[in-house]
Amino acid sequence: MSRVFVTGGAGFIGSHLVDELIKAGNDVIVYDNLSSGKINFLDSAKSTGNLEFINGDLLDLEKLKDSMGDIDIVYHLAANPDIRLGTTITDTDLKQGTVATYNVLESMRINGCKNIAFASSSVVYGEAKKMPTPEDYGPLFPISLYGASKLGSEGLISAWVGTFGIKAWIFRFANIIGTRGTHGVIFDFIHKLKKDPSRLEVLGNGLQEKSYMEVIDCSRAMIHVVEKFNEDLNYVNLGSSDTCSVSRIAEIVIESTGYSNVKIEFTGGDRGWAGDVPKAMLEVNKLTESGFNCNFQSDDAVRHTAKSLIEEIGL
Amino acid sequence: MSRVFVTGGAGFIGSHLVDELIKAGNDVIVYDNLSSGKINFLDSAKSTGNLEFINGDLLDLEKLKDSMGDIDIVYHLAANPDIRLGTTITDTDLKQGTVATYNVLESMRINGCKNIAFASSSVVYGEAKKMPTPEDYGPLFPISLYGASKLGSEGLISAWVGTFGIKAWIFRFANIIGTRGTHGVIFDFIHKLKKDPSRLEVLGNGLQEKSYMEVIDCSRAMIHVVEKFNEDLNYVNLGSSDTCSVSRIAEIVIESTGYSNVKIEFTGGDRGWAGDVPKAMLEVNKLTESGFNCNFQSDDAVRHTAKSLIEEIGL
Repeated sequence: MSRVFVTGGAGFIGSHLVDELIKAGNDVIVYDNLSSGKINFLDSAKSTGNLEFINGDLLDLEKLKDSMGDIDIVYHLAANPDIRLGTTITDTDLKQGTVATYNVLESMRINGCKNIAFASSSVVYGEAKKMPTPEDYGPLFPISLYGASKLGSEGLISAWVGTFGIKAWIFRFANIIGTRGTHGVIFDFIHKLKKDPSRLEVLGNGLQEKSYMEVIDCSRAMIHVVEKFNEDLNYVNLGSSDTCSVSRIAEIVIESTGYSNVKIEFTGGDRGWAGDVPKAMLEVNKLTESGFNCNFQSDDAVRHTAKSLIEEIGL
Repeated sequence: MSRVFVTGGAGFIGSHLVDELIKAGNDVIVYDNLSSGKINFLDSAKSTGNLEFINGDLLDLEKLKDSMGDIDIVYHLAANPDIRLGTTITDTDLKQGTVATYNVLESMRINGCKNIAFASSSVVYGEAKKMPTPEDYGPLFPISLYGASKLGSEGLISAWVGTFGIKAWIFRFANIIGTRGTHGVIFDFIHKLKKDPSRLEVLGNGLQEKSYMEVIDCSRAMIHVVEKFNEDLNYVNLGSSDTCSVSRIAEIVIESTGYSNVKIEFTGGDRGWAGDVPKAMLEVNKLTESGFNCNFQSDDAVRHTAKSLIEEIGL
């Protein structure tokens, strides 16, 4: 049994990870400012008696330092979840991404905590020329401010490994979808259809195509990777082995609502917004060869998520 | 003729770049807080009448914004020059590196400046498995906090290219050496020998081996790359095509002092300090095939620098 510190543990992915960590017999301390996380996402975790919740901001370095005593490993998941925000407000990802990661690492250094697992993203690859994209791909030129904050955080973590001798696991996530989702294309589509069931506006030409991974698969994969990989610095793509297009997602979401005669309207262009990567497909051999299997591939993950979110949101 | 804004323009590399930019017929605005730069490094530039000097800190975003009107291109060179500092003070590179770069980019966005040239470093490659290391090498896992700040800055720049449509040139420097140097192995050796000409302490086992580039070669190369490369995002290794070991540098510096019977004492270990990359050799085909030639290869650059710095520092 370990004492595990989860930043962003009340968030969409974080709260699922907390559930899995507690199932696996760990004591979990969640540090979250509830800016996008929700306290009720932790209801079932709380009922086990193995959860401590700290309402704190990662930019409050003093509070963070004081909160991180006697921890075996930090899962650092907190971040601004809205990639598109960077097109209008430019300092959110810097602060809640790169600077927050610095504060986590510095608090670990002060407290003598030697292990960090970090939720990075496939957006660090930018518009990769190689698909599926392997972990050793270069160059790394993200095109969104969110992506820059993930790359900046990875660099800080590898510097801490090289300079202060900590051990790290970096996960490069595909698009993670599932229950408790508060952002993203499926969430948006459901809200649009709820407002007007006769039409669905799709940003871009619908040909954008990405790997999707179901959130419980993702949470299990994180714990699996930390158990199975044992270098000083480990970095693994987390995703399913196929992709789904935005057009296909629109079709699946509409089908899941039960609405008929919905007109799909494309805004045009090859991407949803400036900084959106139009095509992302991850090579996941490193993950699968270590013995991990997803319960859902992309299409099924989308369908499962659409059904679950429609139940959560209501039509 | 262009109006060129140079951050860190009073520094070691910056002041040489300013000299070259003025020679090439540009008007130059230097923005520098003189934390490691020296105002007298700009004496000859000032005498031309084509230099404006602003004593400002990049962390003062308001002043920076106000200073950056009507600029054609920013050369962003300001940074903490002391890589080793990160082993004891952990926030300097974050602030003077990543956050400062954010401020430069944000000021450019506000002022409508669309071109940035950035002094990155070969340390973004970390302990690369491939030597010589090409620009498309991955993964990028720097092992120093300085390296993390360069990678974080590169990510911000590529995000600005992808999101706001600016154009960028990223230079990944070898070890740059030459007159006006205020840090680095040659500088350190001269100061040690000045103090005690009977012995020279060398950090590590002396087998550390890196590419060196003379600072005027480096300044010319930067201007050359901006002229010759025309993608939205350009990234080029700047270095000579060979390497020099630390043992060899010790020999050359001792030879240049004229001292005899100096005992070289190695502290041992494969690197100078935690976070020091023991071996770095850059593939420079991209630079040379674009028509650029260095005046000095590594050995000659070391000898030339040793002689110049001995003159500047005095024995």
